[in-house]
Amino acid sequence: MIYYLGMMGMAVFAITGVIAAGRKEMDIFSIILFGTVTAVGGGTLRDIIIDCNPIFWIGDLNYLWVSVGASVAAFVLVKYLSQVYTLLLFADALGVALFTILAAEKTMTLGFSPTVAVLMGVTTGAAGGVFRDILTGRMPLVLGREFYATPMLIGAVIFILLEGSFPGLGFNRLCGMAIIFILRGAAIQWGLYYPSWLTYQRKS
Amino acid sequence: MIYYLGMMGMAVFAITGVIAAGRKEMDIFSIILFGTVTAVGGGTLRDIIIDCNPIFWIGDLNYLWVSVGASVAAFVLVKYLSQVYTLLLFADALGVALFTILAAEKTMTLGFSPTVAVLMGVTTGAAGGVFRDILTGRMPLVLGREFYATPMLIGAVIFILLEGSFPGLGFNRLCGMAIIFILRGAAIQWGLYYPSWLTYQRKS
Amino acid sequence: MIYYLGMMGMAVFAITGVIAAGRKEMDIFSIILFGTVTAVGGGTLRDIIIDCNPIFWIGDLNYLWVSVGASVAAFVLVKYLSQVYTLLLFADALGVALFTILAAEKTMTLGFSPTVAVLMGVTTGAAGGVFRDILTGRMPLVLGREFYATPMLIGAVIFILLEGSFPGLGFNRLCGMAIIFILRGAAIQWGLYYPSWLTYQRKS
Repeated sequence: MIYYLGMMGMAVFAITGVIAAGRKEMDIFSIILFGTVTAVGGGTLRDIIIDCNPIFWIGDLNYLWVSVGASVAAFVLVKYLSQVYTLLLFADALGVALFTILAAEKTMTLGFSPTVAVLMGVTTGAAGGVFRDILTGRMPLVLGREFYATPMLIGAVIFILLEGSFPGLGFNRLCGMAIIFILRGAAIQWGLYYPSWLTYQRKS
Repeated sequence: MIYYLGMMGMAVFAITGVIAAGRKEMDIFSIILFGTVTAVGGGTLRDIIIDCNPIFWIGDLNYLWVSVGASVAAFVLVKYLSQVYTLLLFADALGVALFTILAAEKTMTLGFSPTVAVLMGVTTGAAGGVFRDILTGRMPLVLGREFYATPMLIGAVIFILLEGSFPGLGFNRLCGMAIIFILRGAAIQWGLYYPSWLTYQRKS
Repeated sequence: MIYYLGMMGMAVFAITGVIAAGRKEMDIFSIILFGTVTAVGGGTLRDIIIDCNPIFWIGDLNYLWVSVGASVAAFVLVKYLSQVYTLLLFADALGVALFTILAAEKTMTLGFSPTVAVLMGVTTGAAGGVFRDILTGRMPLVLGREFYATPMLIGAVIFILLEGSFPGLGFNRLCGMAIIFILRGAAIQWGLYYPSWLTYQRKS
């Protein structure tokens, strides 16, 4: 179950990588490279930081093949998609929800403290997108004004708290993911922002 | 003593991250994320390269909390600061001086050669700022014409030489840090540059 | 033999880093830093991902000194070079050919699967250039439309297949490198692109 969720997260992230970063005339190989880096980037950074060997996609090459396959699918299908931008944002929210919670769980399973688990959750959820944005030379989405990384933090904290109270309950995972997806989805739909006293005010 | 210097370095770097990278309307969470990545980024890269486990801020979460706290403080106080840019540069010089020497010392303590120690010192001092600049989409400061990374190299080399002659003397550390801070401070104050025959002349 | 090829690859990559990234008035130290990061970046990422300790340039500092020396040479000589851009592209092709095959070989020697070996080959060949482009704030060359990363993939796959059939034959290495260099060189000379049905068509 976790396993297939992880695969699904891979696929979703690869697709968002392709949709977000693809540029006219970019060749199929660059597209695959891009989708795959976006998909496996966050988890790779997590495994490097917590020194988990082998890195997940070396230990199980299926993650890689799913990313490659999803990138190809996105390449083929993207021209038939109309409302691409909103779709991208929701797909990204789903991928982020899956990755954040699964990474927090993995980190805790490996014996790290709850704080590190929350942090690795947010890192894994956000880093793939940050790599994608750096490679395309854009301001990373995570640093914009919109409610982007905060849902990951809230979801990861609640998941870790639930795990502390009811260890191993499948509902914990679902709950954490739902919170992230709903908060982020709401932010996309209704444009949620922090109140102005919690935003940076220096003119620059 | 080293410990508190390290904490101070964290705080200073987090603050420079926030001041340098903060943009109007960026939310408090992104600000904290930014300050923290800037603060712990260099040391994280160092620990990954020399395979030091656990990474310093996982081994002692205080580093993380200090970074978060300093980021929040910078967020709150930044609107009251007037000569922000110069302040930023001097604070950056201080953070760089602290980090470079402490990292060179840590690397040598772990049994690496003096060359690697100097290199890890410069890496740790410079990488946080490079990550900050990459995330904000700017040309990294370290690659500009100004006397930026050279003070780190000189300070680290002198520190390593002193350690070779007088192992464990606290003065060595102070001396290395002072050299870096003074050279970099002088560069900021009087705009020191390399002579033109040591700068790149190809038109581009 | 492998050893000297590796050193040559280091030198070539450092030079391309300096030529591609150097900007008027950039100081000698930044130039060296730049050339060195470009040269050792790809292999460093590979060694971190496959958890090979120590990282190659820590285990043998000659790699580092060659990179530094080549960067200085590039700094001194660049003003005498006229057709810099084409030269850069061919030198880059050579460096990429060397690095890709040597990295694939190293990864396989360490017991990883052929798929991982191919991937680490491409990563090592491409990552140095990507780091260089990110640091200078340009769209990474690897993601453009031109036939850039594909030759690495083809060469690495053929090398791995040959190694499977005739283990340890020096010709395998030469053959893989030649394929990469010739394909990439042809792409530079005659502007090879993927056919349009293999390039991204969404307007963006």
